Amino acid sequence: MRLRRHSAIDDERFHDECGVFGVFGHPEAANMTYLGLHGLQHRGQESAGIAAADGKRIHTHRVLGLVQDNFSAETIAALPGDRAIGHVRYSTAGGSGLSCAQPITVRSARGWLSLAHNGNLPDAEDIRLRLEEEGSIFQTTTDSEVIVHLIARSQGESLTDRIIDALSQVEGAYSLLFLAMDQLVAVRDPYGFRPLCLGRLGNARVVASESTAFDLIEATFERDVAPGEMVVIDARGVRSFFPFPPRPRRMCIFEHIYFARPDSVIDGLPVIDVRRRLGERLADEQPADADVVIAVPDSGTPAALGYANRLHIPFALGLIRSHYVGRTFIEPRQSIRHFGVKLKLNPVRAVLRGRRVAVIDDSIVRGTTSMKIVRMLRDAGAAAVHLRISSPPPPGPGDYGIDTPTREELIASQQSIEAVRDFVRCDTLGYLSLEGAHAAAGGTLSDKQFCDACFSGDYPVAVRRTSRSDPPACGCGDMNGGRDAPDERNQEARR
Amino acid sequence: MRLRRHSAIDDERFHDECGVFGVFGHPEAANMTYLGLHGLQHRGQESAGIAAADGKRIHTHRVLGLVQDNFSAETIAALPGDRAIGHVRYSTAGGSGLSCAQPITVRSARGWLSLAHNGNLPDAEDIRLRLEEEGSIFQTTTDSEVIVHLIARSQGESLTDRIIDALSQVEGAYSLLFLAMDQLVAVRDPYGFRPLCLGRLGNARVVASESTAFDLIEATFERDVAPGEMVVIDARGVRSFFPFPPRPRRMCIFEHIYFARPDSVIDGLPVIDVRRRLGERLADEQPADADVVIAVPDSGTPAALGYANRLHIPFALGLIRSHYVGRTFIEPRQSIRHFGVKLKLNPVRAVLRGRRVAVIDDSIVRGTTSMKIVRMLRDAGAAAVHLRISSPPPPGPGDYGIDTPTREELIASQQSIEAVRDFVRCDTLGYLSLEGAHAAAGGTLSDKQFCDACFSGDYPVAVRRTSRSDPPACGCGDMNGGRDAPDERNQEARR
Amino acid sequence: MRLRRHSAIDDERFHDECGVFGVFGHPEAANMTYLGLHGLQHRGQESAGIAAADGKRIHTHRVLGLVQDNFSAETIAALPGDRAIGHVRYSTAGGSGLSCAQPITVRSARGWLSLAHNGNLPDAEDIRLRLEEEGSIFQTTTDSEVIVHLIARSQGESLTDRIIDALSQVEGAYSLLFLAMDQLVAVRDPYGFRPLCLGRLGNARVVASESTAFDLIEATFERDVAPGEMVVIDARGVRSFFPFPPRPRRMCIFEHIYFARPDSVIDGLPVIDVRRRLGERLADEQPADADVVIAVPDSGTPAALGYANRLHIPFALGLIRSHYVGRTFIEPRQSIRHFGVKLKLNPVRAVLRGRRVAVIDDSIVRGTTSMKIVRMLRDAGAAAVHLRISSPPPPGPGDYGIDTPTREELIASQQSIEAVRDFVRCDTLGYLSLEGAHAAAGGTLSDKQFCDACFSGDYPVAVRRTSRSDPPACGCGDMNGGRDAPDERNQEARR
Amino acid sequence: MRLRRHSAIDDERFHDECGVFGVFGHPEAANMTYLGLHGLQHRGQESAGIAAADGKRIHTHRVLGLVQDNFSAETIAALPGDRAIGHVRYSTAGGSGLSCAQPITVRSARGWLSLAHNGNLPDAEDIRLRLEEEGSIFQTTTDSEVIVHLIARSQGESLTDRIIDALSQVEGAYSLLFLAMDQLVAVRDPYGFRPLCLGRLGNARVVASESTAFDLIEATFERDVAPGEMVVIDARGVRSFFPFPPRPRRMCIFEHIYFARPDSVIDGLPVIDVRRRLGERLADEQPADADVVIAVPDSGTPAALGYANRLHIPFALGLIRSHYVGRTFIEPRQSIRHFGVKLKLNPVRAVLRGRRVAVIDDSIVRGTTSMKIVRMLRDAGAAAVHLRISSPPPPGPGDYGIDTPTREELIASQQSIEAVRDFVRCDTLGYLSLEGAHAAAGGTLSDKQFCDACFSGDYPVAVRRTSRSDPPACGCGDMNGGRDAPDERNQEARR
Repeated sequence: MRLRRHSAIDDERFHDECGVFGVFGHPEAANMTYLGLHGLQHRGQESAGIAAADGKRIHTHRVLGLVQDNFSAETIAALPGDRAIGHVRYSTAGGSGLSCAQPITVRSARGWLSLAHNGNLPDAEDIRLRLEEEGSIFQTTTDSEVIVHLIARSQGESLTDRIIDALSQVEGAYSLLFLAMDQLVAVRDPYGFRPLCLGRLGNARVVASESTAFDLIEATFERDVAPGEMVVIDARGVRSFFPFPPRPRRMCIFEHIYFARPDSVIDGLPVIDVRRRLGERLADEQPADADVVIAVPDSGTPAALGYANRLHIPFALGLIRSHYVGRTFIEPRQSIRHFGVKLKLNPVRAVLRGRRVAVIDDSIVRGTTSMKIVRMLRDAGAAAVHLRISSPPPPGPGDYGIDTPTREELIASQQSIEAVRDFVRCDTLGYLSLEGAHAAAGGTLSDKQFCDACFSGDYPVAVRRTSRSDPPACGCGDMNGGRDAPDERNQEARR
Repeated sequence: MRLRRHSAIDDERFHDECGVFGVFGHPEAANMTYLGLHGLQHRGQESAGIAAADGKRIHTHRVLGLVQDNFSAETIAALPGDRAIGHVRYSTAGGSGLSCAQPITVRSARGWLSLAHNGNLPDAEDIRLRLEEEGSIFQTTTDSEVIVHLIARSQGESLTDRIIDALSQVEGAYSLLFLAMDQLVAVRDPYGFRPLCLGRLGNARVVASESTAFDLIEATFERDVAPGEMVVIDARGVRSFFPFPPRPRRMCIFEHIYFARPDSVIDGLPVIDVRRRLGERLADEQPADADVVIAVPDSGTPAALGYANRLHIPFALGLIRSHYVGRTFIEPRQSIRHFGVKLKLNPVRAVLRGRRVAVIDDSIVRGTTSMKIVRMLRDAGAAAVHLRISSPPPPGPGDYGIDTPTREELIASQQSIEAVRDFVRCDTLGYLSLEGAHAAAGGTLSDKQFCDACFSGDYPVAVRRTSRSDPPACGCGDMNGGRDAPDERNQEARR
Repeated sequence: MRLRRHSAIDDERFHDECGVFGVFGHPEAANMTYLGLHGLQHRGQESAGIAAADGKRIHTHRVLGLVQDNFSAETIAALPGDRAIGHVRYSTAGGSGLSCAQPITVRSARGWLSLAHNGNLPDAEDIRLRLEEEGSIFQTTTDSEVIVHLIARSQGESLTDRIIDALSQVEGAYSLLFLAMDQLVAVRDPYGFRPLCLGRLGNARVVASESTAFDLIEATFERDVAPGEMVVIDARGVRSFFPFPPRPRRMCIFEHIYFARPDSVIDGLPVIDVRRRLGERLADEQPADADVVIAVPDSGTPAALGYANRLHIPFALGLIRSHYVGRTFIEPRQSIRHFGVKLKLNPVRAVLRGRRVAVIDDSIVRGTTSMKIVRMLRDAGAAAVHLRISSPPPPGPGDYGIDTPTREELIASQQSIEAVRDFVRCDTLGYLSLEGAHAAAGGTLSDKQFCDACFSGDYPVAVRRTSRSDPPACGCGDMNGGRDAPDERNQEARR
Repeated sequence: MRLRRHSAIDDERFHDECGVFGVFGHPEAANMTYLGLHGLQHRGQESAGIAAADGKRIHTHRVLGLVQDNFSAETIAALPGDRAIGHVRYSTAGGSGLSCAQPITVRSARGWLSLAHNGNLPDAEDIRLRLEEEGSIFQTTTDSEVIVHLIARSQGESLTDRIIDALSQVEGAYSLLFLAMDQLVAVRDPYGFRPLCLGRLGNARVVASESTAFDLIEATFERDVAPGEMVVIDARGVRSFFPFPPRPRRMCIFEHIYFARPDSVIDGLPVIDVRRRLGERLADEQPADADVVIAVPDSGTPAALGYANRLHIPFALGLIRSHYVGRTFIEPRQSIRHFGVKLKLNPVRAVLRGRRVAVIDDSIVRGTTSMKIVRMLRDAGAAAVHLRISSPPPPGPGDYGIDTPTREELIASQQSIEAVRDFVRCDTLGYLSLEGAHAAAGGTLSDKQFCDACFSGDYPVAVRRTSRSDPPACGCGDMNGGRDAPDERNQEARR
């Protein structure tokens, strides 16, 4: 008998990113941030944090795990003030812990400052080494902290001057929120890799990675923050600046394919429409001779509906997702085949028996989950299993905030499609093409409206890490996941 | 700021029942029971318990809340033996607590005995009062304990004799499991109100309320236990008895409509097929002039697919269900409208805007949730909202194991359909007819293959509780929810 | 590295007993009981419980462990009413758990009843088997529950009639409290084995095992409850009855020697005076040729002061007791000699070096602790170690509520004093005589004012358990520690 | 009903200090440190921490509260390596939390470094402001962190060079341990304000604030670290340096009077001897006309024995200290007089009734505890109460690591002895003289072997904080208790 952690299916997807949320001018700023982060929870489940400013200081509370499980009424009450920022984070290494959680809050001779970052700064490590040589002491191992130190050393007069000064020294992907005693500053990098949007909640202003953060708190979506824009919110209102040299727009296409919630609208594009079109294009490119189309719920459902509709094959519920799956299960010694997948999904024999089944998923990462699902469908009586994937086959890990398993595990990137099919043991396997993905999002491969560097290797920013074998360890700014932070154990006492 | 418990949507459904599971002859009986109960979790989330017998005694562990959250590897390890039974339970009153949890285990001069019960015994209270007058001391307030006392007082020679003796003194609904040191006994009442099925796991035998309990542990479904059958499992194998006078078969129709999982097969009938046909019948009886059909996920989805297909209207994802909803949320002082529903469901504007929407749910209980969903759809831009319910309007609470809100709250039972529509504020409202429900399950109103007494008032068993204003408080045997058990506080220390 | 439980020293003393406390007519009855139990905590640390009655029912909360660690403001608030009883318990087997905790509360057709018991009923097992044959179902394995069943079956008209009826059927040691909806009844057995006293707290009445329970809550001691007396406290006031045949007074002498707190006064005798005289008698009987007298703190200190004073040898602090010792310690793999004793006691080299030391303790049970202390004193430089024990050598385990290690472990009872000295490795060893113990308490061996059956084997009650090899497992009513209770695991969920 | 924290008596004593422990070359370094800190627990109960170095990094774990309650086998196991340092800390403000806990661990370009500090650096705040202006970011508000930053900025070649460089820039009290990957460095300030001693444990070396840290782990005391000495322990062995200008020896006299354990030997002087002589001197200076001498246990006991012996008055146990007192108690609404003191101490009527009592304590701080004890003794029947204090009356708070209540609370420092007597309501009150305290420790007022600046105002170090109204907030290096650390909330999640 042993405990098994079962985030099986999610673990084998490309990892979600981080999410940021900010509010200025609301009497219950921390509570609103807590609810806003709930609407961004899909972007990161490893840790979460809120920093709130009242007239005197910034209070910060950071936790491991989900927002709703780890913030209490007491911790929210201990975050007074009418302005706050929050962060949810995903990371690769289980051990990275609270030491890499955000917001990062510091107090220096120039006052309090808190930061929340979604993105990745490839050159942060070099800057960090230089600053340490000069006597700076870092608290964490995240690349985000480099920004804080650059700001502390800047001789810029105002906070915004110092932020511009600091960001001019780095290249990379960032949607950033800064909270000072009297200002909330939001910055999106010039390429616009990661989403960021503005809204209004009564007299208060809100800013978030996705508009789903606004829905629960009944805030109104106003507009996306533009690539390269710095938005300053304070008692005088909202001001907008474009302090950086312009760059071509390069929104990450995988926000639309996997990361964002289907009910989000990013840079004007409804995600659910993109996902339906991904299924339609997949039907065009990779039709299947099937009696029924089913989805791997819930992530595969939007594309499956598009796929079924395009091919005029009935859509049915062939896999039921359990509502009661937590993170660990007690497994018998006498092992159960495909235990992790079975905990989450159960096949519906009445739908599958004797039928040729097209099953739609949004990705294959390590392949083991797909293999288990195929086996489960066959055991339930499926006459044939045609696996269709509504994203392109990944050639290699990316560099801008997408955390993937190690290269070795990315079977699709190293083996032919045929080898994957052999491993997964489906009758036929079809991926969407990269062209198809761009088309579903309304672009083309050549117009480069979207960044697909993770899959194409075509990086818009000069990446100076070519000699390293590992991809950036964390999509959210962890420039060095393998280097432990001094005090992390300390903070994990909480667990 | 305050904490709000948010089981909102589920709370306003007709309450689920209980579930029972048993295994005989498996070296990891308690672990298998734990996993089996996970597959029955939808039948009861208030409490759970496992009793396991080794050669020396029966060990019992009962908890409040979900199986996976409240059993640990240590507690499973402390339940040794190769035979075990388990129970999950729903109940009305939040305060009923562990004292009403099952299995109930006792040790008397005749040895150890443990019991798990799904059902309801209307005459248990009278028997209980008589036994107390004679000096019996009851530990709990459940009607199930009456069976234990009747067995303890029986002069029958064998355990099965004493069980038959005890059950001959009661009338009602029961799917019962008894665990003794060397036997597992399963009994289904002569009407067959509640499901019960048998399976095989290697050399071991398993028994469960629904076949979904077998899927995770890879047990094979063998057959349903017949109404009135007593199955005795011991070292000699499996024996079957029919010791009670025969009765007409009266499976509860709401098992098919709400209670069971869609991936179950009950008395030979796949639940998912019944639910799809409920949607098709609903389309025939209550068509809607709509551009899109959406479901209230996940319970409304099977019928919605049937509804959409029959009317050739596209099915789409108009409401996204959050994967991260727990039991409590910290709500701001400045109240958020429809907070509970919003935590679980978010509308998809791109699907709804400007469209006439048919939204399918499996029930309306108090009406407030439906009203909030209708409002949410309109706020997201729906041009019209046509609400369709894949079950009949409930005329009054039932008496055989279905726990419903009080009569006053059952708006559909006291007001006309029109009044409900006014309250819910949809454009049109349509329920499935009782005839339609029977037809979807393959029967007719007049053949009475199914019990629909909760809705029709047509009770197959003489109910002696007519003078009482309240319905039976608990579908799982709690004959007296308002009467507190002596030691309950004690055991709630755990919380 | 491993965890070690370190109640070392206490574990090797004769085990403490149980304590009972009751209050009638105080608006904060449960809180007063909680504080009263704190003043009786030395009588039992395994479990504790409080039952409180308001107009409607009896609420009960029982916990494992210390009163202060396991009751919270919430649990106290959930015990409303102006009358309450409480219990602290010691028991032998670590596994006995909550199932043996008291008060025991039941609700029958005749209403609520709660019981707290300090004592032991040797014939309870026989009665229990008879009742089970007749169909009674027991919840626990304690002999105390037999009383509850006898009361439930009594046809006596009033509660006091039924109590008298029930207690007339048992023999043994008991100081008992009964709480009903409108009465608090206290009974002390006719021999008066265990202490029980009455007090007043404003208009409320209090009753407790020792007067130390009154001190913290500022109640006034009024008088001891007499042997064989039944005190009934209700709205009419306090009434006294003597319903049982009179017996010779036989207060347990070990209450004075070990069990009671030194600041208690029992049956008119201050315990601290008895303990000082034990030291003086020990000095007369077993003088030591020493330079300094030290105590094993704190239990040995009163006798050590008497010993030092009688012999005109200086008393000094030779062993310092740590204030920070909890129940478990993380021990290195590389084992530390005498770790458990060292955690609690540290020798003072400046006091011991080069001196001949007389060290006074109140008992030797297994001898290993004494051996470690002797070694520790020698390592710190003592020139000679003369161990003096202020109690008689135990010839065998007793039968009336004293829980001792198994016979095999009672080294002093099976080996000559000389063998003990060899094992403990002190220079000389001296015990007080049984005569000396009686004399210190103001009696004589022959007048039998005190029960010394544990040591003398001279039992005042016919004990029918002669064929059994083990002594009564629990001084507080557990007639069968090895027989597990049905539901204990259940309740241990709390831990 | 409310919860009350009851560290009453201790809270009103002059606060204990901090304690440090280090070990080099032991395979279970963290476990040994854990046990060593247990032996220093009396020096600080607010927080504790351990940092351990293996070949790769330094792991640190810090907790609030007691060592034994807050370190688990898992946390110890997660601190691998054969060298470690640890710290226990007391501080004034309850809110200071984990952010001020030690060891402080940082990782810079020059590698890992961890520090544990007992003492106080009055000029740290000025240095800190200067460093922040230059862009340094501080993690905590402790003066100890200043040392870390000075080391990080030093251009010294070796670690010891950088330590010497940093310490040359500060003045104050310090016993400091530094842990690097390959070295353990111990430094005692040139005045020797705080104790520090060296020992041996097999082949490993140990260093600790007091020798009691060695006793439990069976290490051998070797020698005290000399004032101004820097001891470097590494693979080459133990080397000693005296890099600072010499200063006169000024051991804090209150280590002997209050702080140290009675079983410690500091700079060659057994503490228990000093405490006995304090009692003897007190008897000479302030004899009482009493029938019995009692102590406020346990801190007053050594002096009480000396006092009783000198005056030939019997010593007795007049107050019994409870073994079961934790940190919080549920107090009834109907308040109990002197509740906090009663939870800990109970008077023994048989000792006190009708007697003139001399009661010996080691200090009076706020006076309320003394007043309660005097009242308790009178209520228990004492004919007269003569209070004798084995320390001098404090004229004002000190500046070198002794944390005292605010000036206003120091009643003895602002009122005449007579006013204190009136407040406390004893019959007579006598303090030991400052001369007497020096004499008991073997010195004289004029030879200044001991620092008594807290009481005399005669500071050996030029204190540059004269313009500030408050004394240093924390005896252990907290230069600014009122300035909150950025991330403290974060870390208090643990609670």
